[in-house]
Amino acid sequence: MNAEEAAKFEELLNPRGIAIIGATENPMSGGYSFIRAYLTSTYPQDKIYPINPKRNEVFGLKAYPNLQSIPYPVDYAIIGIPKEIILETLESCVEKGVKLVHIFTAGFSELVGYKEEGKKLEQAMSQITKGKLRILGPNCMGIYIPKNGLVLAAELPVGLENSGKIAFVSQSGAFTHIFTIMSHYNGLKFSKMFSYGNGIDINCPEILEYLNEHDSDTEIIFQYLEGFRDKKTAKRYYKVLKNLKKPLILLKGGLTEAGSRVTMSHTSSLAGTIEIYNSLIKQMGIIEVHSLQEALDALKLFYFCKPYPKGNRVGLIGGGGGNSVMIADIFARAGLKVPNLDRETESQIQSWIGEQFINGTISCNPIDLNAAGFDNRILKKVIKAFDDSPQIDVLVIFENIDFLIGFAKKMKLEGLSKGFYRFFVRLKKKLKKNIIIISVPVIKEADVLAEAFEVEKLLFGAEIPVMNSNEGTANALAKLIQYTEFIKKNNL
Amino acid sequence: MNAEEAAKFEELLNPRGIAIIGATENPMSGGYSFIRAYLTSTYPQDKIYPINPKRNEVFGLKAYPNLQSIPYPVDYAIIGIPKEIILETLESCVEKGVKLVHIFTAGFSELVGYKEEGKKLEQAMSQITKGKLRILGPNCMGIYIPKNGLVLAAELPVGLENSGKIAFVSQSGAFTHIFTIMSHYNGLKFSKMFSYGNGIDINCPEILEYLNEHDSDTEIIFQYLEGFRDKKTAKRYYKVLKNLKKPLILLKGGLTEAGSRVTMSHTSSLAGTIEIYNSLIKQMGIIEVHSLQEALDALKLFYFCKPYPKGNRVGLIGGGGGNSVMIADIFARAGLKVPNLDRETESQIQSWIGEQFINGTISCNPIDLNAAGFDNRILKKVIKAFDDSPQIDVLVIFENIDFLIGFAKKMKLEGLSKGFYRFFVRLKKKLKKNIIIISVPVIKEADVLAEAFEVEKLLFGAEIPVMNSNEGTANALAKLIQYTEFIKKNNL
Repeated sequence: MNAEEAAKFEELLNPRGIAIIGATENPMSGGYSFIRAYLTSTYPQDKIYPINPKRNEVFGLKAYPNLQSIPYPVDYAIIGIPKEIILETLESCVEKGVKLVHIFTAGFSELVGYKEEGKKLEQAMSQITKGKLRILGPNCMGIYIPKNGLVLAAELPVGLENSGKIAFVSQSGAFTHIFTIMSHYNGLKFSKMFSYGNGIDINCPEILEYLNEHDSDTEIIFQYLEGFRDKKTAKRYYKVLKNLKKPLILLKGGLTEAGSRVTMSHTSSLAGTIEIYNSLIKQMGIIEVHSLQEALDALKLFYFCKPYPKGNRVGLIGGGGGNSVMIADIFARAGLKVPNLDRETESQIQSWIGEQFINGTISCNPIDLNAAGFDNRILKKVIKAFDDSPQIDVLVIFENIDFLIGFAKKMKLEGLSKGFYRFFVRLKKKLKKNIIIISVPVIKEADVLAEAFEVEKLLFGAEIPVMNSNEGTANALAKLIQYTEFIKKNNL
Repeated sequence: MNAEEAAKFEELLNPRGIAIIGATENPMSGGYSFIRAYLTSTYPQDKIYPINPKRNEVFGLKAYPNLQSIPYPVDYAIIGIPKEIILETLESCVEKGVKLVHIFTAGFSELVGYKEEGKKLEQAMSQITKGKLRILGPNCMGIYIPKNGLVLAAELPVGLENSGKIAFVSQSGAFTHIFTIMSHYNGLKFSKMFSYGNGIDINCPEILEYLNEHDSDTEIIFQYLEGFRDKKTAKRYYKVLKNLKKPLILLKGGLTEAGSRVTMSHTSSLAGTIEIYNSLIKQMGIIEVHSLQEALDALKLFYFCKPYPKGNRVGLIGGGGGNSVMIADIFARAGLKVPNLDRETESQIQSWIGEQFINGTISCNPIDLNAAGFDNRILKKVIKAFDDSPQIDVLVIFENIDFLIGFAKKMKLEGLSKGFYRFFVRLKKKLKKNIIIISVPVIKEADVLAEAFEVEKLLFGAEIPVMNSNEGTANALAKLIQYTEFIKKNNL
């Protein structure tokens, strides 16, 4: 993809007007969710054109019987009508001069019992549109670009304040919606998101190439991939991987026999063999994940830990002896080092903890501060000691935020948790090393959680990743460090 | 442990009166949390005796200057005073005829820089009390028996309605508190819980022996173990394991070098080698977990899936194509089978889904019902087909409860989620096979979560395990099936 092609691709993502073909107020219909989506977006409402021959208005927006009756430019069309009228709809898109068509409609080459007919229909769709407009889909959710207000579901975070540096390219439509929501509550923001489904025209290699080489808004790429329609697409994909300039977190579906059986019905894709995949992962420095949860954990560390840690030696700071042992085990098992501090630092820490708190604490790495952890002066000194220690590359604090809030409420010690997390926000700026907080969820009470989420927001705002699983954090951190080693080794 | 010894042990757990030595209203003091704990328990308030020579009352309860001034029997004493006066306190316990002493106070043989003195102090404590009373601790949280109202923290679930069949034996004190709360929000209830810390008298082998062979209230045992004080204790432990009659879920701390370094400071225990441990796990059919989260997942399946599944062939039913692929991969990777249904069942399912819904669905195993999943008549037929299928041993439904509730609110389809989960409660009674629901958390909004937790409670009440992680469920299910195979193979 050269600069001109990239500019052309980018033009597709900045439509002057959007038609929603099949827009309706009937929630059982495909066009419903997209009109609802755009009603709750920042995209200019006067440039959204519902197409519905039976209605004058849809949700208060003027409706048009067809594309041709819209007296304004329409660059982007979202199609939610039955496949039986897909060909004539595409013809009218060509006629109107639409640049990009997103086909939400499903039931083409991926549908069991209809695969052959579906394939033929897809070929006819390509023929009608080739060289005239670009197609995203069919069987997909389309595009989400918070900066422009392009959305794929209702009430997504939009606007500049909700724009970030992560791109997500997904062969699954539902993943884009659910992962946007998961990410939103985990402090992550997106540059661009693409769901391309059966990918009969625009497919993941082209999108990745654009994101990797030409999109300055994107720093990290997350991809959900099931497989490829044909060898040509696969080849282009491998070519893109060879020139990776940005971290690519890859969730590859269909690596087991059970999973690959489904990819054929889902997006009409051959999942490929695990051997090819494994060698790719190794050679290209791709970051492998096996679930959205793992992807979320990895993205949080890649997003917030800047610059990346220099090595794999972790300093663990928290409360609870059993917790300390368990977490040390988990981090060591993930291939990370939990080294001893030097004797001097250890006895320094002991002296800071002092007589008042010493019983029940453990002054090594991991350190169990017990009640001393709530004395901010002690905690600050300890964290600074870990930050200064030449034995440590990255700091991990383990503390159950919700449990602490609930406990403080229960024990009528409301002051306890309040200042605790603001302390980290202030401290963060003074630290040389990355600091990660692990807060495993314990309590399920709405009032406690509301408070806990406020705390998390505060921490995300200060670029401190709050993680919700010990194993998840250890594994994600191991991936981050592996990646930095790959980069170093290959002089990237 | 013979019947007489068991009866004697059990007597310790049914105290006629409880003294809290060091009870105070000062939250920074050790005795504070236990008096708060008993004030919020069902244990008869008139049989709780705060000991505090400086006060006439503690939180409205009559305080006594010492044990001797209590004119009633005291069978159980909780000690939260400084270790400097531990010996004279134990002497007065002996004098009063106390049967069981729980020493919360820490800073004995586990404290770095005090290990030798601590050991000597512990020996003196044993000498004073040997043959006269039993000690739990020091450096521990004591006992939680919801049935009797014995508690180790404030506002724990107590009473018969909060009593269940799980026992937890923990070398970590903090784990008992936090795990009680985690479990409470996950539908799990306990028979008995023991935190024994340094275990200078009562230690895990004795507790396990009692639970395994004599306690009819306990069906499943969960243990957090760091190590043993001496070879005698280790030997007795192995003897108990050889006679295991109940499933033992074991979280072994200190299996890595990093973790084992901490166990010495935490509970003064040698963690033992991983080789001995691994051979034990295999030979005894012990269920191994590596974190509280894994323990929770395993316990939920062992607790709710009765009778245990007959084999490892999983039927996956849910929504979302990418989700279906990902979850099939995760279950297959955990060593479970996700078999094909027979052609006949598949085409039956396709016919039930029908023309209206067929686009975007996948009618194999895993099955992606898409919107058809919200038509209860279709869903019921599909689940029954999986329940009847000779290819399937256990049913797993994947559906994000919070996301569904949030989505329904957002799309103004409030009716959508409401009836959905009551449907499962009704259906559960008619199924031959176990049904497990996986609901990975997505949304962090208090109002949505409050509703989601109500749904979870409803499902737990119907003995349907609601799991919060795909990987966690797959791994826990693999453990459950491994255990049933072990039982079968060994004719247990």
